[in-house]
Amino acid sequence: MSEQLADRAAALDAADELAGCRKLFALDDATVYLDGNSLGALPAHVPDRVADVVRREWGELRIRSWGESGWWTAPERIGDRIAPLIGAQAGQVVVGDSTSVNVFKAVVAAVRLADPTRTEIVVDATTFPTDGYIAESAARMTGKRIVPVDPEELTGAVGPATAAALVNHVDYRTGRLHDLPSLTAAIHRAGALAVWDLCHSAGALPVGLDEHRVDLAVGCTYKYLNGGPGSPAYLYVAERHQGAFDSPLPGWTSHADPFAMTPGYRPADGAVRGRVGTPDILSMLALEAALDVWDGVSPAAVRAKSLALTDFFLQCVESYVPPGRVECLTPREHARRGSQIALRCEDAPRVMSALIEKGVVGDLRRPDVLRFGFTPLYVSFADAERAARVLSATLH
Amino acid sequence: MSEQLADRAAALDAADELAGCRKLFALDDATVYLDGNSLGALPAHVPDRVADVVRREWGELRIRSWGESGWWTAPERIGDRIAPLIGAQAGQVVVGDSTSVNVFKAVVAAVRLADPTRTEIVVDATTFPTDGYIAESAARMTGKRIVPVDPEELTGAVGPATAAALVNHVDYRTGRLHDLPSLTAAIHRAGALAVWDLCHSAGALPVGLDEHRVDLAVGCTYKYLNGGPGSPAYLYVAERHQGAFDSPLPGWTSHADPFAMTPGYRPADGAVRGRVGTPDILSMLALEAALDVWDGVSPAAVRAKSLALTDFFLQCVESYVPPGRVECLTPREHARRGSQIALRCEDAPRVMSALIEKGVVGDLRRPDVLRFGFTPLYVSFADAERAARVLSATLH
Repeated sequence: MSEQLADRAAALDAADELAGCRKLFALDDATVYLDGNSLGALPAHVPDRVADVVRREWGELRIRSWGESGWWTAPERIGDRIAPLIGAQAGQVVVGDSTSVNVFKAVVAAVRLADPTRTEIVVDATTFPTDGYIAESAARMTGKRIVPVDPEELTGAVGPATAAALVNHVDYRTGRLHDLPSLTAAIHRAGALAVWDLCHSAGALPVGLDEHRVDLAVGCTYKYLNGGPGSPAYLYVAERHQGAFDSPLPGWTSHADPFAMTPGYRPADGAVRGRVGTPDILSMLALEAALDVWDGVSPAAVRAKSLALTDFFLQCVESYVPPGRVECLTPREHARRGSQIALRCEDAPRVMSALIEKGVVGDLRRPDVLRFGFTPLYVSFADAERAARVLSATLH
Repeated sequence: MSEQLADRAAALDAADELAGCRKLFALDDATVYLDGNSLGALPAHVPDRVADVVRREWGELRIRSWGESGWWTAPERIGDRIAPLIGAQAGQVVVGDSTSVNVFKAVVAAVRLADPTRTEIVVDATTFPTDGYIAESAARMTGKRIVPVDPEELTGAVGPATAAALVNHVDYRTGRLHDLPSLTAAIHRAGALAVWDLCHSAGALPVGLDEHRVDLAVGCTYKYLNGGPGSPAYLYVAERHQGAFDSPLPGWTSHADPFAMTPGYRPADGAVRGRVGTPDILSMLALEAALDVWDGVSPAAVRAKSLALTDFFLQCVESYVPPGRVECLTPREHARRGSQIALRCEDAPRVMSALIEKGVVGDLRRPDVLRFGFTPLYVSFADAERAARVLSATLH
């Protein structure tokens, strides 16, 4: 069985049109890295770019780099690089701050764009916790009430009291993919605004923000976008909302004329309005360089490989692992699956430690979930087979 | 005259106990860099440290670095490195986010710590604009009213309606230093909380946050602290307020047990409560390395040199520059002077361009202010003399 699956992996890798992308990353063959859904691997050319930013742009040009090296316009320029990966036309995405800070901007702005008589913010009850904490603060500060709802029940939960709904595209724990088109439509039918968190989907599958008329969205860049640890997040504001986008964090770099340094705030036009303070250049330009790996790669090809990888991993797990030892929390249906496989396992902390010891790096979500992220740009079918094989040996 | 002042500069440099610090920075003798109050120069050892963070910590250790490389605790660890530079005991400073975002946290938190019947937030009317914009948003979201006041008149302006006052320690435009001890005392006598912005003072002069019982403070790290372009800012929350500190941005990394990932928010104890999202590691660890230049340097010695440098620069300007061509906006009294000299000049944009062309790098604040920042760790008296000489030649 093991030999058959290993052969099958080799055949799948040989036919993989994205196989060539792996060499763009600093990876060693000793490790199967299945934690790119937490921290993406280092693109191999990024260190040289960062060194140039530090030594030449900062060290030699110093203050001149704000203009000459394009530092000042980095947030919107890099936003435009991310835009095609999330199905957005240019001019709607700005990079900066953490995901949490962007959730705050997006939820408060959504409430302010909504009918002011509406009293509720519906929040994905299964969300990554920061979204819930921040939405709660946004609700408190705008005089609204939080209504936590399982995304599967969201369509029935939104209504005439809903100002906005904040939903995760892919659940961080189970890898469950929520149906962005139909949920966005349901939120709109209720007369509310749809805010999507793309942390676990952008870079792993097509998002289609413009096509599905999403209102606002946020996402991080250090998972499938490989921007580096804690790299800046992004904010999408649909063009039709930009004129009325009213940020709770109107920092000076979102001013229409920042260097006039006038006491009165006058917001810039466009996505720039989502900026806040001075952009964090080292992290931002590392991210910009990291995005080069997407040149010529289509989100559709990435999605096809992601599904093939997770299908194959599940097949290997089912073949290798004794029945009953793990329970798959990730939906089988392609339409409901992100790019990770979450397995519930009784002694998950011990198992994950042992896996990491043996070179198979996933992660643990307490108390009992093993997470395996499949980054289509650099994970191979051979990696998937090896991970299942090592998992089986660890569980036997 | 020029020869006398050049000799005097040489004598002052020879006697300068901080002269040895200059070699810690990547500086060339062709340039007189007087813009460290906008972007500090690169400490020479930072590129190697950043390269190690990128190649080894991110590229090789990957996800393990959150624990093994100390990434997770960087915000509070680096906060403790900054603490002595602003007169704070450990455990009260946390690094992360931009200054603007930290102003929002600090002002909202101050309002929440204040007597809820108080209706006003007093804001330094001469402040760097982002503080005013953000304070206005904080006021709007907490139901308070902004009262803009010149810091010179603050003592008479705070009263029983004041919840909090936000003041800049050094005015970014004129270099005027405000009297932190007496203003903090006046704010406290009015029963309000004092929030200080240290962007233009930290690293240039002693601040004494604990000694003067400041309540909350924020500051950037890319000016006199040389952290790099857009490096993360910091937030100081006095220990006595930490238990009641109620952040408007309660992100997951400020949770008491972040990896429990529970839907209910429960804040951590201590300065950690000021954290928000995932820390921006590349920028943060560049900053941490940059702080090494402060080892063995006392803020008092820095202040003494700063005053000597600005005194000497003014003396050179008065000797060299034709009378009436520039007007000094920076107070002469040491007690009211930060670490920069601001000169008003009729054709300031042309003059600053010409100065930069000739290797004297200051900056312009529209419409007519030439700013010259004096960073005691790397600016010499010879630099000050040369800058004044070149300025004079440009103006003749």
